[in-house]
Amino acid sequence: MSLSAVNKRWELIGDSDAARRALLPDGAESELAAYQNHIENCIGAVKIPVGIAGPLRVRGMFASGDYYVPLATTEAALVASYSHGAQVITEAGGCVSVMLNEGVSRTPAFAFHSLVSAGLFAVWCIEHGNEFRAAAAQTSAHAELADIGVAIEGNHVYLLLEFTTGDASGQNMATIATQAVCNYIRENSPLKPEYSFVEANFSGDKKATAHSFTTVRGKKVSAEVTLPKDLLPHRLHTTPEQLERYWKMSAIGAIQSGSIGVQGHFANALAALYIACGQDPACVAESAVGVTRMELDQQGNLYAAVTLPSIMVGTVGGGTSLPTQRACLEIIGLAGAGQARALAEICGALALAGEISLTSAICANEFARAHQKLARGRNAGQQADNG
Amino acid sequence: MSLSAVNKRWELIGDSDAARRALLPDGAESELAAYQNHIENCIGAVKIPVGIAGPLRVRGMFASGDYYVPLATTEAALVASYSHGAQVITEAGGCVSVMLNEGVSRTPAFAFHSLVSAGLFAVWCIEHGNEFRAAAAQTSAHAELADIGVAIEGNHVYLLLEFTTGDASGQNMATIATQAVCNYIRENSPLKPEYSFVEANFSGDKKATAHSFTTVRGKKVSAEVTLPKDLLPHRLHTTPEQLERYWKMSAIGAIQSGSIGVQGHFANALAALYIACGQDPACVAESAVGVTRMELDQQGNLYAAVTLPSIMVGTVGGGTSLPTQRACLEIIGLAGAGQARALAEICGALALAGEISLTSAICANEFARAHQKLARGRNAGQQADNG
Amino acid sequence: MSLSAVNKRWELIGDSDAARRALLPDGAESELAAYQNHIENCIGAVKIPVGIAGPLRVRGMFASGDYYVPLATTEAALVASYSHGAQVITEAGGCVSVMLNEGVSRTPAFAFHSLVSAGLFAVWCIEHGNEFRAAAAQTSAHAELADIGVAIEGNHVYLLLEFTTGDASGQNMATIATQAVCNYIRENSPLKPEYSFVEANFSGDKKATAHSFTTVRGKKVSAEVTLPKDLLPHRLHTTPEQLERYWKMSAIGAIQSGSIGVQGHFANALAALYIACGQDPACVAESAVGVTRMELDQQGNLYAAVTLPSIMVGTVGGGTSLPTQRACLEIIGLAGAGQARALAEICGALALAGEISLTSAICANEFARAHQKLARGRNAGQQADNG
Amino acid sequence: MSLSAVNKRWELIGDSDAARRALLPDGAESELAAYQNHIENCIGAVKIPVGIAGPLRVRGMFASGDYYVPLATTEAALVASYSHGAQVITEAGGCVSVMLNEGVSRTPAFAFHSLVSAGLFAVWCIEHGNEFRAAAAQTSAHAELADIGVAIEGNHVYLLLEFTTGDASGQNMATIATQAVCNYIRENSPLKPEYSFVEANFSGDKKATAHSFTTVRGKKVSAEVTLPKDLLPHRLHTTPEQLERYWKMSAIGAIQSGSIGVQGHFANALAALYIACGQDPACVAESAVGVTRMELDQQGNLYAAVTLPSIMVGTVGGGTSLPTQRACLEIIGLAGAGQARALAEICGALALAGEISLTSAICANEFARAHQKLARGRNAGQQADNG
Repeated sequence: MSLSAVNKRWELIGDSDAARRALLPDGAESELAAYQNHIENCIGAVKIPVGIAGPLRVRGMFASGDYYVPLATTEAALVASYSHGAQVITEAGGCVSVMLNEGVSRTPAFAFHSLVSAGLFAVWCIEHGNEFRAAAAQTSAHAELADIGVAIEGNHVYLLLEFTTGDASGQNMATIATQAVCNYIRENSPLKPEYSFVEANFSGDKKATAHSFTTVRGKKVSAEVTLPKDLLPHRLHTTPEQLERYWKMSAIGAIQSGSIGVQGHFANALAALYIACGQDPACVAESAVGVTRMELDQQGNLYAAVTLPSIMVGTVGGGTSLPTQRACLEIIGLAGAGQARALAEICGALALAGEISLTSAICANEFARAHQKLARGRNAGQQADNG
Repeated sequence: MSLSAVNKRWELIGDSDAARRALLPDGAESELAAYQNHIENCIGAVKIPVGIAGPLRVRGMFASGDYYVPLATTEAALVASYSHGAQVITEAGGCVSVMLNEGVSRTPAFAFHSLVSAGLFAVWCIEHGNEFRAAAAQTSAHAELADIGVAIEGNHVYLLLEFTTGDASGQNMATIATQAVCNYIRENSPLKPEYSFVEANFSGDKKATAHSFTTVRGKKVSAEVTLPKDLLPHRLHTTPEQLERYWKMSAIGAIQSGSIGVQGHFANALAALYIACGQDPACVAESAVGVTRMELDQQGNLYAAVTLPSIMVGTVGGGTSLPTQRACLEIIGLAGAGQARALAEICGALALAGEISLTSAICANEFARAHQKLARGRNAGQQADNG
Repeated sequence: MSLSAVNKRWELIGDSDAARRALLPDGAESELAAYQNHIENCIGAVKIPVGIAGPLRVRGMFASGDYYVPLATTEAALVASYSHGAQVITEAGGCVSVMLNEGVSRTPAFAFHSLVSAGLFAVWCIEHGNEFRAAAAQTSAHAELADIGVAIEGNHVYLLLEFTTGDASGQNMATIATQAVCNYIRENSPLKPEYSFVEANFSGDKKATAHSFTTVRGKKVSAEVTLPKDLLPHRLHTTPEQLERYWKMSAIGAIQSGSIGVQGHFANALAALYIACGQDPACVAESAVGVTRMELDQQGNLYAAVTLPSIMVGTVGGGTSLPTQRACLEIIGLAGAGQARALAEICGALALAGEISLTSAICANEFARAHQKLARGRNAGQQADNG
Repeated sequence: MSLSAVNKRWELIGDSDAARRALLPDGAESELAAYQNHIENCIGAVKIPVGIAGPLRVRGMFASGDYYVPLATTEAALVASYSHGAQVITEAGGCVSVMLNEGVSRTPAFAFHSLVSAGLFAVWCIEHGNEFRAAAAQTSAHAELADIGVAIEGNHVYLLLEFTTGDASGQNMATIATQAVCNYIRENSPLKPEYSFVEANFSGDKKATAHSFTTVRGKKVSAEVTLPKDLLPHRLHTTPEQLERYWKMSAIGAIQSGSIGVQGHFANALAALYIACGQDPACVAESAVGVTRMELDQQGNLYAAVTLPSIMVGTVGGGTSLPTQRACLEIIGLAGAGQARALAEICGALALAGEISLTSAICANEFARAHQKLARGRNAGQQADNG
């Protein structure tokens, strides 16, 4: 990425010197090289402030310990809210967060002349699973074709190819592996499709879908915590009873709105963490789906759980190698290979912290007030839980 | 936001000097003040590279002209794809993009002892619309309560309050105005609810919902373009016929996946533009819903249209005042008051460009290849359309 | 309908004398005349056994008193279960059931050359609401166009016409009135659509949809009852606590399945009552959607409510005039004009009875047993609650 | 079922002699015995007129030949419409209809103290699939546990048990087999659930769900036909082009309405056939979901296909043994064991006939007129296609 190309682009978009100084300040030209394989038509960079939420105590299969989670956002009150929720969880002994399942889909589709041909082709595909797996494996050491599903609709066949992708989030890896499977099919299938496409929009890529919600897209995580009843009035200004009845009322609210799943604002946690940590923030579309449940347990404490079936995270690839994004991963202690599942468990724990904090604020009648104070700048500094 | 507080946070999270230098390089302390009302527990900022897509010719009610749209992303191929789509649209004479409707909801809920009380309360609410409007109006000169809906479920009443919020995206404004309506209700309703909540999750905030899809959340925009049949083989390596049949096959793919609406990857456009321009990227969860349609017209050209009912954008408030974000708004020429509707029309046009580019790549069998080349760095520079 | 035509059909389908004797026994030829305007290609009739459930005490706006509800089914245990639920409700003092809203939709659609034309047409439609209403009113004294909505998708316009239809269920009346509106448009609109259709599948006719669930299709009813805690162990073999926790677990089960709304088996109530009472049983597809809620109230009693937004019933038209169907309406006391809203309230109350009975059986671990006993004929007679 | 009990019920519901004569005419007492294991609190029977639609030529895996399909309905125009569609299909050489998959689910759920316990229990269940299968098999020679799925949500575990059930529709068989699995779990699981339920509403029983749509509930069938372009103007008063563009417009209409799948009125076919043939009409709620697709093929003919993933039919059990219902099954030639899959294929073919007939009527602007003529009795006899 040559500086002259960057300069030409700035000329193209006009002479706003102030804009240029903001996006490409003096000395920042040296950073452009790092963006080379991450963006085209580059003109500089935006800065998103990062705050830390925590400590968040997590007892997971892959993540274990007390974490400070960097969150990138421009929305006042967000970090304060998550940090508060995280601290309350930690005071309660931490949360359990478990990755239950993983897999990324691509769904090529094939058109035939007739339903009978479509059916025969589907059978052939199922019989050639091993060959498909081999074709996929040749594209990357990490791309493993884990499952093959078939959906026939008239003379059309959709293949549901589900991959594991190592520590990468994996959409591109899955695409390239799917292309290899399609190439194998083109060369070997005794039945030639009239036409076919490498992806036919059944995969749930970049959108909320009932199918991903019921199965998995990326990583499925469930996290839980029990908050002692004595902790709530002091720390959350509400009671387990209030939280349970809010849960019921808001669950039916969500159901009436026709949402997929029932949860409050997973999107806030995921967008802020994805941006900070070099994940793809467009995946908030699919990731912000799941179930939150809050209820009294037999001792009158509050049991709270979240289940997120579509967390799209990796610790290699994508934006994870950029300097500031890598720094954020290092702050959590999860940079580099071998850490993607732990990062998903952190996502689950963070979402849990946010659901507790938000619903408590609503129950305590502090929801509107928090936004008013922090966003409008009155005494904002005092609100921060942490330093 | 004092530097000593920032330093204390860095001590708290450990001694990673490299991380600190990345997020808070020398000289960046002066920028922290700007983040004061936008984040808590700040430790620095992440940088997201920005590329420009365009020129994108838009003929809208509010946006009109040729635009270069700044997109912030770390995903290779994204800007190149949008820029290519934008240029093809422009070559075809530009697209029409029209804001059709606007409104942001909050949905407080009220519990009563009985269905009869709930019904009487609902009637009282409808009769007191003017008083509700007045209460809302007192919280902000821009908060206007435009519509009041009621949903009764047993002894529970959900109010669907829909606001217009000037040039702000408006979630916080709507929350504060809803609190004022709830205060009015608490003081004046002859029927006292057993309990109530300022928001009961019917509003579609931060999630994809069928209700927002059918009505509006934020701003509803539809955009269209007709691409001459001769333009496609040369510029998109496909034909109108192929695009139409892909549309049909992928529409049924999306339907089978249980998505809300039918579209390809609105999320990519919206996440990249929201981050660049200081919008709330968590709203990608609700915004990435809608309809894409492609079909042959009577002359054999390709008609393509997108409809996005939930674009959440503003040109004042939120992150729009931060230096780099404001710079991006200035590049589009839409910074400050009076520009929110035009920005929404740009979102629609940009989404259209992306749908055309992506589906063409799939039809031309270039989808996997594009990712392979750009993301993995082979000849990446050659791919950029623009300089 | 001449007997010779009937005889010819029997010859056509072959010589099964037993089948003919079953469907058209000696003497039944005289009944064929009654079917004249209700069916084509008639060869006889099937018999569906009818049982009565009740007494069911209803305190509604339109229905009030103790009802015996005739249910037509061939599924063992169904009537026993509903009758048991009805009796428990009655012992608790009866349920409240209230019709909250009504309206039947048709959704014609219009294609234009461009989005701008579509938008202008939409404005013209909204401005000509009075003319549309007049055109609709001319088709029937009962067809009233109550609301006009507009949805623009690219260069397509969908009109959401919502009618009230007196005491008829009203789909056909709405269709004919919509045709009249379309005729008016064709003759008067300054913008001529390229093509249009009288119904474009947005109306929710004969299918479960999120839109009908959030608004109304036919009649929206909510019903509630509070069951004293002392009544449950004796009469339902469970406790309020067990029912509440079952509700929570099954609500999340339904959410995970991607259902529209959350309920158990409204379809059983509605299919059996629709068939008995001359309603259109295909409408079970749209009617079997809604919300069931069960929870402890402050005194430890069980509060149970159902909300059904899409009850499609009438007391005139359709099958209501056939002899056996009219007899069933007479048993409830709701035959003829002026009774449709009361019938909808009965549907709500009956659905509530069924939800209580079914969930109690599951909580008491009697669900499988009930089917085993009644369907497989062991001591079946002893199970009937009534007689 | 003694007559004296029936008499007592008639006394209970009052003295309407006319109603009694309609539901229980002289001589009908002898029929009551047949209803013994099918209904409780019996007071007689309603009669639903039956018409025949056909001939419908089907080339399936299990159904093959020309069929006359008995349909029970009180809605004018329904049989005429289906019969017309069937005849057009037959003139075109018949349709292909193929059962693709089968299985009926029950979904028991188990609550534990913690997510960790829930996870361990889930693992134990997966390891004990053979034992579960054995327990299920002991309840019926036909109940085979074909698949076991697990969904963990916090400390709750939902088991998705999928059964094949021979020639019975199978809900009750699945319930009883699930009870046996639950009994096995209770006696053998090292982890005792805090509580559990034999069904937790994830199964899609009696409701439209995204999960059943994507997988299968009962039997999944796809059917297709190609209608020569010359046939359409003469027989359907429309053209392949018009049908394709109606399909696109109505598909987007359905998508905007938030339906599950995209189809016109499967419910009409299924309700009428289910009632005639002794199936459970409440299952229309789940069965009336799927996909209809119509498009031009390369020769300009019309390709039409339907896919129904949730057909709930059996040829033994339920109402199939009642005299009139068995007569209807005999008319199709599918009474008794070994015929359930063929019956499902007939359902698919019939649904296809209805979609063709309905959409053609809309395209030919005959939709409103058909209802007007047949339902309102003008020249109704002339409309019938068949004698």
